[in-house]
Parts: sequence; C-alpha cells; structure tokens
Amino acid sequence: MVADPDVRPNWYEGPLPEKSFRSIFRWGNPGQFKHPNRGLVALMQEMLGVSPEQLSEPVSFGLDQVAVDPPIRLTAAQIERFEGIVGPGNVQADGYARLRASYGQGMIDALRLREGVVESLPDVVLHPRDKRDVADILAYCHQEGIPVYVVSGRSSVTRGCEAVQGGVSLDMSTHMNQVLAVNEINQTVTVQPGIFGPALEQALNQAHARFGARNAYTCGHFPQSFEFSTVGGWVATRGAGQNSTYYGKIEDMVLALEVVTPVGALKTQDFPRQATGPDIDQVLIGSEGAFGVLVEVTLKVFRHMPENTRRFSYMFKTWEDAQQAAREIMQAEAGFPSVFRISDPEETEVAMRMYGIAGTPAETLLAALGYRSGQKCLLLGTTDGDRTFSINLRRKIRQVCRSYRAFPLTAFGVTQRWEHSRFLDPYMRDDLADFGVLIDTLECAVTWESLPEVHAGVRAVIKARPETVCMTHISHFYPQGANLYFIFITKYQDRMDYLRLQYAVLDAIQQHGAAVSHHHGVGKALAPWLPGQVGQAHMDVLRALKQHFDPKGIMNPGGTLGLDMSVEQREQRWGLGEQQE
Amino acid sequence: MVADPDVRPNWYEGPLPEKSFRSIFRWGNPGQFKHPNRGLVALMQEMLGVSPEQLSEPVSFGLDQVAVDPPIRLTAAQIERFEGIVGPGNVQADGYARLRASYGQGMIDALRLREGVVESLPDVVLHPRDKRDVADILAYCHQEGIPVYVVSGRSSVTRGCEAVQGGVSLDMSTHMNQVLAVNEINQTVTVQPGIFGPALEQALNQAHARFGARNAYTCGHFPQSFEFSTVGGWVATRGAGQNSTYYGKIEDMVLALEVVTPVGALKTQDFPRQATGPDIDQVLIGSEGAFGVLVEVTLKVFRHMPENTRRFSYMFKTWEDAQQAAREIMQAEAGFPSVFRISDPEETEVAMRMYGIAGTPAETLLAALGYRSGQKCLLLGTTDGDRTFSINLRRKIRQVCRSYRAFPLTAFGVTQRWEHSRFLDPYMRDDLADFGVLIDTLECAVTWESLPEVHAGVRAVIKARPETVCMTHISHFYPQGANLYFIFITKYQDRMDYLRLQYAVLDAIQQHGAAVSHHHGVGKALAPWLPGQVGQAHMDVLRALKQHFDPKGIMNPGGTLGLDMSVEQREQRWGLGEQQE
Repeated sequence: MVADPDVRPNWYEGPLPEKSFRSIFRWGNPGQFKHPNRGLVALMQEMLGVSPEQLSEPVSFGLDQVAVDPPIRLTAAQIERFEGIVGPGNVQADGYARLRASYGQGMIDALRLREGVVESLPDVVLHPRDKRDVADILAYCHQEGIPVYVVSGRSSVTRGCEAVQGGVSLDMSTHMNQVLAVNEINQTVTVQPGIFGPALEQALNQAHARFGARNAYTCGHFPQSFEFSTVGGWVATRGAGQNSTYYGKIEDMVLALEVVTPVGALKTQDFPRQATGPDIDQVLIGSEGAFGVLVEVTLKVFRHMPENTRRFSYMFKTWEDAQQAAREIMQAEAGFPSVFRISDPEETEVAMRMYGIAGTPAETLLAALGYRSGQKCLLLGTTDGDRTFSINLRRKIRQVCRSYRAFPLTAFGVTQRWEHSRFLDPYMRDDLADFGVLIDTLECAVTWESLPEVHAGVRAVIKARPETVCMTHISHFYPQGANLYFIFITKYQDRMDYLRLQYAVLDAIQQHGAAVSHHHGVGKALAPWLPGQVGQAHMDVLRALKQHFDPKGIMNPGGTLGLDMSVEQREQRWGLGEQQE
Repeated sequence: MVADPDVRPNWYEGPLPEKSFRSIFRWGNPGQFKHPNRGLVALMQEMLGVSPEQLSEPVSFGLDQVAVDPPIRLTAAQIERFEGIVGPGNVQADGYARLRASYGQGMIDALRLREGVVESLPDVVLHPRDKRDVADILAYCHQEGIPVYVVSGRSSVTRGCEAVQGGVSLDMSTHMNQVLAVNEINQTVTVQPGIFGPALEQALNQAHARFGARNAYTCGHFPQSFEFSTVGGWVATRGAGQNSTYYGKIEDMVLALEVVTPVGALKTQDFPRQATGPDIDQVLIGSEGAFGVLVEVTLKVFRHMPENTRRFSYMFKTWEDAQQAAREIMQAEAGFPSVFRISDPEETEVAMRMYGIAGTPAETLLAALGYRSGQKCLLLGTTDGDRTFSINLRRKIRQVCRSYRAFPLTAFGVTQRWEHSRFLDPYMRDDLADFGVLIDTLECAVTWESLPEVHAGVRAVIKARPETVCMTHISHFYPQGANLYFIFITKYQDRMDYLRLQYAVLDAIQQHGAAVSHHHGVGKALAPWLPGQVGQAHMDVLRALKQHFDPKGIMNPGGTLGLDMSVEQREQRWGLGEQQE
C-alpha cells in the first residue's frame, strides 16, 4: 500500500476522565504524549496495511467511567479487621480502586479494559503503612484463607498482580515508599519496596544534601518502566534496567531483603558474598509474590558520574556482523558497556525513520558503501564508570566494530536520540491501539549459540501473519549470551486475535530453546510455558518452596509461576483453549 | 625469648609410607616440600616461645600404618548390590581407603590422625563411573536408608566429607573427572565434578590444540587448594579462588548444573540470566552434598591472556589507610584487580621476613619514611584482562594508593614472590605440627562497615592466648565488603586444646557480626554457628529444601549445614561440650 504522507490521525489529547477505563490502561503521566511521527504513520500504511480511513476513525478511547462493582466476597467482620490493622482510610472497596489494583500494562490488560471486560478484582485494596501492618495482614489472611496480591507500580506485563481469586491487594506504593538508609561506607541503600524509580534515583543523586554523603550515587537500574515501577516490582520479577550490561540485573544488585510470608518474617544479611549454604536471596528474588511480601530491600549503589558517560553508535553490514562484534566486545575482558543495543535489519529500518536518518544524504552514503536496507544493523550504546575506564572501553568498542566492517555513526547523535526517547516510546502504544493497531513485545533469554535460531524461528512465526512488523533487538548482554526482544506491530481484531498471536510467539520462543523471559518475569500470563522450559524436577523445587512459605496457597494464587495452575488451566492458556482446536 | 639463628629443625623428608596415617593427613605432592625458612624458625622461637629443644624433637610424624578396620555395617547383599552397580573393582572396603575418604584437610583431621583417633568411617568407598551409576547408587541408598557422602579432592577444612554415620562415600575423582565440552561461542566449559583444578586449567589453556578453539581460556578459579581440589568441591562449598575479586566466586561462574538427588535428577539451563522465578542453581551451589550429588557443571571461562597481567605492591603507614585505599579501588568503577590482598600489621611483619625484605636496607628506608613496624601494611596484587584495561586499572590503583600515602614496592618483586609460593605455603603446616606447633586459619565475610570491628574483636581473642601469632589479610574484595582471613600459629597440647581455640575464634567471628565463612563453607565443623548467624526462619527454608530433595535424610547426614544437628550436638560442638563447663 502506498502511504499518504499527509494523513494526520486525530491522536487523543483530550482529558483523562477521572475513574475512566482509560485512566487505568493509559501509560504514563496524564499530561505527557509522544505520538507516532510522520515516518511511523507512513510505515503503518505501507507495512501494516492501515488505510487512511482507519487512521481517521478511532476504535475507542476507553473514556467510559468504570461502573463495575462486583459483590465483595469478604465478610463485614473481615473488612473490619483489615480496617483495624491499617486504619479505615487505608481500605478501599470501590470498583474503580479494585480494578486499578488488578490490571497492569500487559497488552491483554489494555485490550480487556478497552472492551470493558472485567475479569478479576480483589475484594478490597489495602494500603499498609509499615511492615508490621503487612505481618498482621498476612497472619490474618493465612488464618482465614484470604488470597493476597501485591501491587505497586502497576507496570506488570505478565498479569503479575492480577487478583484472579479475589481477596486483598496490598498497594505498597502508598506509604511504604521511603529510603530508609544510605550507607556510604558499604555503598548501599536500604529502601521500602514501594519506592518508585525516580524517587530512589533522586535520593541517590542528591545523597550529599540528603544524607551527608561525600559522593553522589546512582541505582544503575533503568527499565523502560523506570518512572512507573518500584523496587519491589523489580525484585519480585528479576527485572533488568536498560544499563544492565554494566550495572547488572536486579538480582546482581540485591544484597539483603526482608520478606513477610504467611508463616513469618525472614531477613537476610548484607554480606556481598559468603559460603554459608544456599543463597536464600536468590530464592526470594523472582518469587513474584508467591512466597511472601517484600518489606525491605538493601541494594548496591554506584558512584554517579554522568560526566564520564561516552556514547557510540555504528552501522553494520549484516546482522551476523553486529552479533559477532557485540559478542567479541562482551568476551574481550575490557569491561562492559552500559547501554548496549543492536537492532536487527527490520528494527534498524524503523530506527532510521524514528531517528530522522532515513531519506537523508547519510542514508544514501551508507547505501553506497554497502550498508543495505533490509540487511544493515544498528549498534548503539554508552560507556560509564571511571573516566579512563569509560574512555578506554569506548576505544576498544570502536576497534572491535571496525574490525567487523562497521561504519561509525557517532557523529549523527543516534545514541542521544535514543536516550531522549528511552522512556517515551511506550506512550505510542495507546495511540496505535486507539486506531486498531497493536504493538506488543515479548522478550527471552538466549545463549550466544542459540541466538540466531531463536531470532529466525520467532521472527518467522510473527512474519507469517500478514502485514506485520517485527522489530528485534538485543539490549542486555553477557559474555555467555544475551536477551532477545521482539516488538510486533499489526492490526488486530479483538483480544482473542491478540492472544493467538502472543501464544504462537511464546510457543516459538520455547520451541527454539530460549528462556521464556529475560526480565519481564513469568507472572500468570507466561506461566503455562514455564514447566516446558525448566522441567518437572525444577517445578517440584518451586512447589516445595511454595509449600514451605505459603502452605495454604494464599500468596498471589491462580497460576503465578505455574505453581497452582491446573492441567486444564495450562492447556486452556487463559481462555484460549476452546478457540484453538 | 631470644632466637637461636642456627637451629635447623630436622624437617621430615623421609618416605611417606604406604597406607600410613601421614599419607592421609599430609598436604600435597609426596615429593614436594616447603619448609619454614630461617626467618620463620626465628619467629617460632621469638614469638611462640618454642625452645631449641622442642625444635629438635618431633612430636610424631604419624608414620604408623593404618591398622583400623572397624566392622562394616552394610549387609553382604547391600555390598553385592553396589558391586553390581559400579563393578567390583570400584568398591573399596579396606580400613585405609575408608579412612582416607572420610578425613580432609582440617587441622582437626590432621590432629586426630596424628593421635591415631579414628572417629568416622564410611562402610565402603564407591567409585561411580558415570551419572547413571550415581543415580543407581542414590536410588538404592534411598530405598535402603544408607547414608551417602561425596568426596573428591579431600581438601575440606570443615569436616565436609566426614562420614559420621557410615554408609557409602562416593569418590567422584576416580572416573568422573573429564572435560565434556568446551563451547567457544558461549565461552563455557562443561565438566564432570571430579576434575581437579590443574586438569581443567590445562584443558582450557590448551583449548586450541584439544578442542580446535580459536582462543586459549582460563577457569579463573585458583583457590590455595587448586592442585588438590575439584570443581565439584568448589561448587558444593561456594568456594573462591585467589583471583576472585576479578573473576568472581564459583557461584558467579556456574551457568548450569546437573544434580542427582535421592528423589531424582535435576538439570538447570545455561542462560547467563533469566527472569523465570527463583534461581535453583543458587539453591544447589553451597548445598554441600546435603541435597544430592553433582554430576555435571557448566562454568563460564575467560580468555587466557597472561601476557596482560600487571603486578603491583605498596606499603601503607596504617591498617586504616590500607583498608580505605582498597575500598576506594573497589568502589571507583575502574574495574577490579585480580589477585588483591592487604595484610594487617602482624601479617605484614611476617611477610617481610618471608619475602626477604626484613633486615634489608629497604626496611630501614621504609622505617625512616614513617612506615613503622607493627603499623605498616602491605598491599599486593595483579590486574588481568584486556591489555589496555589491565594497564589502565593498575594506573588507577597507583593513583589511589599514592593518595593514601602508600610507598610503592613494585620494584621489589613482592607480588612475584607471593605468586611463587601461593600453592606452597600449606606444606609448612605439617612441618610445624611435627614439632608441636599448630597453624590454622579461619575466614569470614564482612561488610566494609563491620570489617574493623570484626578484625579487632577476633584478633583480641586469638592474641589473648599467650605466645600466639595472629596474621590477618583480606584477599577477596567487593564494592560492598570483603573477607577476613585469620591465620593463627601457636604451640598446642592436643586436639581439645586446638578445638577450644577454634571455637573461641568462631564465637568471636559471630559475636562481631561476620558471616561464618566467605569461601571455606560450613560443613559439619562450623554448622553449630550457622543458625546463630542466619536465624531460624532461614534455617527452616534450608530444612524445607532438604526435606524435598532428601526426605529420608541420607545425604551427607550428621550435621552438614546444621540441617540434622540435634540441640545436644550443637551445644556439644563436636565433643567439646563436656570440657567447657
């Protein structure tokens, strides 16, 4: 289809009505927008077959007020008891609050809410004030057999916080959001789990003024959800920030934590390493609320030295070259870059449009030099750390990239443009969905050896759908492997149409030997694929831990990590079973 | 006491009689010796109060043949079954083999054997040929309730392999000692657990010739026991090599493992990171044979580039300066050194003697410049990695050390001398014990903040014993903390005298807030201190895991990790309870 360059969709910038469905599913700050630019609108027409008509008629903005208010299954006495624990002002029982606590940022959440489908609500939302409140709530819920869900940033994309069995949802972000201590000698910070990324980062950047520290610090953890996710969520899911190649994933940053479980509290110690048996931190990190509630976390912090950050970007002739160069950089023992990303040919094309290089003389030059559309691949990144370390590493990266025939783009400011939009791109999702186009992501973990097969195999499944864009990048690197992050954009009919696509991609991820998640976590949505990946003996260990921490199965019940998923549930895959045969 | 410089103790260099007690407790290669030099002999007289007479009369060389052969409690049918599994040639039932499989390299092991005390023996020693043998053995032992111990390098210093309840000991080093695969794309090696350090390192260094690899590799893991310990032991105990500050501890190197437990096998996957729930590798690493038997391990490997190693050494005016400089180096974000060690004032004095600097003009110069005996502290180390990384980091280290008033000793070759003797120093232990002097070590993990108190508190306990040398170093560093390694040398009466000292040191380690082990592991010897460190809730998690993997309690039973230690056992602390009141 030939694009009409003058089409300007009527992107919604109207008010976000109070208590509307849109106010729940819409990403980010209400007053913040990033609409698809002309290049992307053209792409929607060319590659997705979206007609100018479709771009002029929104499907639905989801502006209706949430009117649902299903009956509360808790007794009055139970609610009174919760009020006694957290105080009456910290118990919410209205339909809007209940819905808001249950739905996250998965595409399936937004699609359900756009369709007005309300499947799972907690009976009440509680806002614990401190860890004693959490302990009292859990002891009571354990006694009464009341399901407990935990929510804070509401940015889960895995149905992680969905209260599928009702009960209570604990919102940790309301009160339990403080920095408790900065320890400059140990270079650690201790926080409550409900603290959001920016509040933590600001406290660390301003450690001199706020804590009398000699240096400024950074948390080093910047997921795309950074502004709207919390430390507790990062830890519960084994999250990763966009700079994890240098700073590590959250499981590399946690030194100690305190968790309240139905059978009591457990607090670990902040030694960086020890040889005293199994590592219990690594049992609790990634337990996704199925064992207990995090109430305190001690994290590593890092010297904040933004003046030392160096940027780089290169264009490679092939995906193979880009991968090999990235692997060589990771295995060269010269230190690791901080932001580090390579885009496959299809993502590179889109990036060229987004970063304004497509159609410029630079692109013509690249083509003339043999960097061809549909083959060329973009690498971009930064180096952090001590000044000489950062400079030396960037020099090493240049050397490796050149040896793989890369063309330096550093002068074009590609990395700066990526940085500028790093937290803004998610805003486009709602714009697209308003006009019947879904953009969703699935990501997985691979070894270097399995990477090419997983990339090709998963792409083949996505591209088998007509008029579908599939952009892939690698954004978290290790000497032994990496992640693969697939973004797919396509017109959609309804949520079942979406789920069929999502499940086909997950099947392909599994079939080609990748881990089902590198940093999004498993939650309830991906749980049907976990046993197939890790095997029965591994699942049995998880179940033994579950049985220990939560003998009555009240913590995040209904499928989390596949722990209490029936065979039927697993086969039905969240309601799609019937449609499949 | 004034030393007689001419005393030359009659160090034993005679034959190591076959099947003698000495052949079991004696460290290392039978033909290899490193006797205390003149400086140390003088020190023994000056500081330990050892008389010239004592140095001329050895207490005992332990040359008697092992004559013990306690009854075997297994039935003939059971032994026949084991012979059916591993083949008759792989079942040993003689007293010497049984004793050898049970005793390790703890001081208490050597002292017992010198005294001819045989407390714990397995009934038979089995040499499994492959993982199927291990599975068959475990299934049968589970059925019959027969205790299972695992042994390979026999270098445990924590009674880790001691068969306190009889049963079978599996020697993994006999057959299951092969490199199974080198994967150059992923930079990993997969091995059987019974492979010794040198065999692994040689295979990696020679990867070009042996596996057709493009590069040479190193395992990066060089504990002092390197020559006489195996990968399985490293993993089972959460060991660390002397270069762990750069390469990481073993738990940072394991990518995947396969373990056979009484209830079946479990194999994990080799993704470098993932977000698929709790990390089961980190449950099995450090489980010290209490959950199952390792049968395969996949480890990270690193490019072998010894040509890039750079050495450095500095003298600081105070222990405080040395610590602060080391912490600054670790927190500076310039990369981590490889070998990295600081010695406290007492160890520095001994090192000056050992490295031949004491009494030279260099020492006079140092004193004149204010680096005083009893206060000054030695720092030494190396940098590894890519050439420019290594050079840049050494430059940074120099800069930091100078800012803390350090005097550069690099020209004196101190680090080279340390390297030369890094695997030889343990040979002196038996020489000293031959003449009634014990040298033993205890090590722990600390945060930077707790380090000074732990150092002072533990030292105070050791130095309270008259005529006792206490040398302390830090040899494993993190941005958030370090280890502390105490070496104590003193005359001893008998093993109860030794145990009283060891227990007092362990009490002090715990009382001042350190973790009871950084890399030796807990075993049975340190287990009485584990609950006091980690707390009851943590112990309950370990017990739940134990119950899952080993419901009948047959794996390394009798106190390992405190899992099946009775209150009496814990209070009695291996037989010292009676003596204490």
